[in-house]
Amino acid sequence: MHYSVADYLLDRLAECDIGHLFGVPGDYNLFFLDHVIDHHSVRWTGCANELNAAYAADGYARCRGAGALLTTFGVGELSALNGVAGSYAEYLPVVHIVGAPKREIQQRGALVHHTLGDGDFHHFVRIGAEMAAAWSILTPQNACSEIDRVICTALSERRPVYLLLPCDVAEAPATPPEFSLEIPTYFAAPKRLEALRLSVQLLLDNAPRVALLADFLVQRYGLDGELRKWMSEAPLPHATTLMGKGLFDETQPGFIGTWSGGGSAQSVRQAIENADLTLCIGVRFTDTVTTGFTHHLEEARTIDIQPDAVRVGNRWFSGIPMAQSVEVIQQLCRQNLRGRELDAPSPPPLPACHEGLLNQHALWQTLQAFIQPGDIVLADQGTASFGAAALRLPGEVNFIAQPLWGSIGYTLPAAFGAQTACPDRRVLLIVGDGAAQLTIQELGSMLRDGLRPIILVLNNDGYTVERAIHGAEQRYNDIANWDWTRLPQALCVDCPAQSWRVTERVQLEGALNKAASSRRLSLIEAVLPRQDVPELLSRVTESLGYAQES
Amino acid sequence: MHYSVADYLLDRLAECDIGHLFGVPGDYNLFFLDHVIDHHSVRWTGCANELNAAYAADGYARCRGAGALLTTFGVGELSALNGVAGSYAEYLPVVHIVGAPKREIQQRGALVHHTLGDGDFHHFVRIGAEMAAAWSILTPQNACSEIDRVICTALSERRPVYLLLPCDVAEAPATPPEFSLEIPTYFAAPKRLEALRLSVQLLLDNAPRVALLADFLVQRYGLDGELRKWMSEAPLPHATTLMGKGLFDETQPGFIGTWSGGGSAQSVRQAIENADLTLCIGVRFTDTVTTGFTHHLEEARTIDIQPDAVRVGNRWFSGIPMAQSVEVIQQLCRQNLRGRELDAPSPPPLPACHEGLLNQHALWQTLQAFIQPGDIVLADQGTASFGAAALRLPGEVNFIAQPLWGSIGYTLPAAFGAQTACPDRRVLLIVGDGAAQLTIQELGSMLRDGLRPIILVLNNDGYTVERAIHGAEQRYNDIANWDWTRLPQALCVDCPAQSWRVTERVQLEGALNKAASSRRLSLIEAVLPRQDVPELLSRVTESLGYAQES
Repeated sequence: MHYSVADYLLDRLAECDIGHLFGVPGDYNLFFLDHVIDHHSVRWTGCANELNAAYAADGYARCRGAGALLTTFGVGELSALNGVAGSYAEYLPVVHIVGAPKREIQQRGALVHHTLGDGDFHHFVRIGAEMAAAWSILTPQNACSEIDRVICTALSERRPVYLLLPCDVAEAPATPPEFSLEIPTYFAAPKRLEALRLSVQLLLDNAPRVALLADFLVQRYGLDGELRKWMSEAPLPHATTLMGKGLFDETQPGFIGTWSGGGSAQSVRQAIENADLTLCIGVRFTDTVTTGFTHHLEEARTIDIQPDAVRVGNRWFSGIPMAQSVEVIQQLCRQNLRGRELDAPSPPPLPACHEGLLNQHALWQTLQAFIQPGDIVLADQGTASFGAAALRLPGEVNFIAQPLWGSIGYTLPAAFGAQTACPDRRVLLIVGDGAAQLTIQELGSMLRDGLRPIILVLNNDGYTVERAIHGAEQRYNDIANWDWTRLPQALCVDCPAQSWRVTERVQLEGALNKAASSRRLSLIEAVLPRQDVPELLSRVTESLGYAQES
Repeated sequence: MHYSVADYLLDRLAECDIGHLFGVPGDYNLFFLDHVIDHHSVRWTGCANELNAAYAADGYARCRGAGALLTTFGVGELSALNGVAGSYAEYLPVVHIVGAPKREIQQRGALVHHTLGDGDFHHFVRIGAEMAAAWSILTPQNACSEIDRVICTALSERRPVYLLLPCDVAEAPATPPEFSLEIPTYFAAPKRLEALRLSVQLLLDNAPRVALLADFLVQRYGLDGELRKWMSEAPLPHATTLMGKGLFDETQPGFIGTWSGGGSAQSVRQAIENADLTLCIGVRFTDTVTTGFTHHLEEARTIDIQPDAVRVGNRWFSGIPMAQSVEVIQQLCRQNLRGRELDAPSPPPLPACHEGLLNQHALWQTLQAFIQPGDIVLADQGTASFGAAALRLPGEVNFIAQPLWGSIGYTLPAAFGAQTACPDRRVLLIVGDGAAQLTIQELGSMLRDGLRPIILVLNNDGYTVERAIHGAEQRYNDIANWDWTRLPQALCVDCPAQSWRVTERVQLEGALNKAASSRRLSLIEAVLPRQDVPELLSRVTESLGYAQES
């Protein structure tokens, strides 16, 4: 085969350290797939459906920096959309490639399958553009430059992008890239930084107690190592939101817990909200991480560091990249606070629990003891993620939840993506029964690929997170009653997986330990009381205020 | 509870004979769901995920005239989108209700979950509008009139519609409808009909041989009974496309087979394409039903009857509803052709087959003998639907396929919807293994609800339809290897279902007969050679012309 646009695109993906392409084959992308099979470093990873593929690419991007997704025109791309939207909301660069009918068919508006039958081939591009930092309809003339522009935008804005690739364009001849991709970056002029420095110094002068609150944008903008180093060498009382969880080694001095606005433990709330100065780094104050906007952080006593701007008290300094503002502020803090004793409360302990039947308290106590440095922990939106907020994670744990987009069922395919990205790390997936039903087929893909995550299905007999919000006993919060432990055998012939159903704490512990010591995929169905919810979730649902307030 | 906008909406759905609302609960629609539970005739039917719910609502609408779907803001509605797009492409009125944050939250652009975090609450409305015949953002002031306008549009245009229902608006007080819904209809003036009559008569004068080709728009516009009566009382040689299949009793005199352009059997092609005059009623000449546009139907020798216009030779008569143009043309045909002998070839027989291992020939022979009048038969895009094209269906069979939108996996949830609409009819689902993996979780919902379809999974070890197009031996056409017969037990505790794995024709026959005589859900895994495809599918894939032609 000659070198083609398809090869160029794949070479660019490889350059972004994207080693796997997730997706589903379709007639408009089959020829492109030949190039994937032949590519030296990008590997095809077929998924059972497109939504799951999008979630997998997102999970992959969270572990590896970027991900890629291949779907077919119309049917495939629309199915993936919810997953791509999650990547947009939560800042994950995922390159979405859509195989399309060849240009000649599009140009004559032919009545072909996978269209709405109205001759308009742009419906889906318009839709894709709603949740893309950049998009392009590739032609033989623009393909190479557009691929570069669009991928660079994905990397610099940390957002998904959309490439429509007609099947004839994929085959068009191209030449390999002349230069490597260059991500546009900029540096603020020294004068701006000086102004920032003076302004921060003023606040620091009057702030005996300084605290730090970090969130997911720190991770997305690659500053997590920097922040960990800072908190390790010159610790301040520090916390993350649920969305930024996993950023710090939570066993280190200075870490005070997961902050959730009014839903936080008292000690965490006081340390963050009553400090004389709170450094908020890469924080988005969304409803679910602030317990329905119940936080009180006075403008005058906060510094808000965002990707391209920073607010110091009531003054905004724009045009300063986060890396530079963190550097300035870190320096000043280290200088000003040197020698001051660290006055940080210990993270609140998990509620005590008893042996016997499992409940939320016993579940999280058991998991707290089980999680090891280096684990990748995924917790689905619902009791799983809000319960996990109370965990004290050891160092080097990737914690994956989706508190802003909040699409239930996301984590199961995301675990597939994460384990594909990091085959040697231990993946622990915590997912409710209602959530797992949305995306269960990807369990089959994990088994096909010989992956070995530990999957904990919290069987509380329905949508417990919804019960906590409304309709505790209503039929609409019930789900079909699955026999979870039989699933691996159904989704894989000669299945090597093991599974357990546990109702008691000691059984859960036993199953987890067996899972950890084996080299097989493990599914544990943990039976929990159906109305039992983590405390934080109760507080969040109370505060969100649905129709009753209006 | 007071009478509210929610109640008004549900009363309108009930008026459209929509007895079931499919969907997934989410925090922005939970309060609305209370009204559903309390409603006297609209019943909540929870699905495992939103795409499946959209497919189920579509299948329901194909059996009952209209359907409805409830999702939550962002995450839910986007997941459903591919299903809704299918309803749009293939003319099914489905009312898509999206529970949204209350207006005050939207107005202040709050950073709440299920948004992209950018304060723009209209992303998803813009997306929904791309595949809606009408849409509305409901307020307490406009709700009742907008609900009526939008639902009437769905019914008159036979297309999905989109209603954004903020949770506070759902609770706003309303009064029950004063009048019943009135679907806008019109009648062409006698002068127009007279012009049409003259023009048709001219063609009939010179047409010794008249044939009729009908398609799905006949069914969508409710003229199927009319056409069946016509063909029964005054038969012409007649055929349907794959998409219109099931319209006629295919065992009656005059029925000549399923027409597929150049992919048709010779006798069918000649009878339709070489007639002196061909009446095309409600036909859309899409690539998959014409074998890649290989048909030859001369303008001068065809009458093309569309929903609101009719072409006679090269003259277009617009502003005539299909019902009226069919009436005019039917009358003239009956008068002009009275006493003429019916000269119609018999439908081509299915290829002969041997006993022993199953293959495509044996499969369709066996199914031909099994299908009974009154069955609902669903055939997924791929070997299933193209194979089913060759069946000769008895009367009163609903045949459901999706040749234009062509989303694989569609039929499994659509079977759930169809069986929910018609609990007393026998539902036979024919679906490939690759396709079934996309949407398998709805099998659990069928079992939960005690439904008893017969599900035939064609296990040909991967995406055989894709193999026929390209990459016969490529890894991307492989799928995870599931143990199909174990699935019902995994997706239902104390499962009443029965399942079989069959490799021989005699076993398939036996399993079908046992399935038919039991009152339990039945899953039959039919093992087929992985490269074996129905003849029509070979011809279609050869003719579609992907990249290689360019």
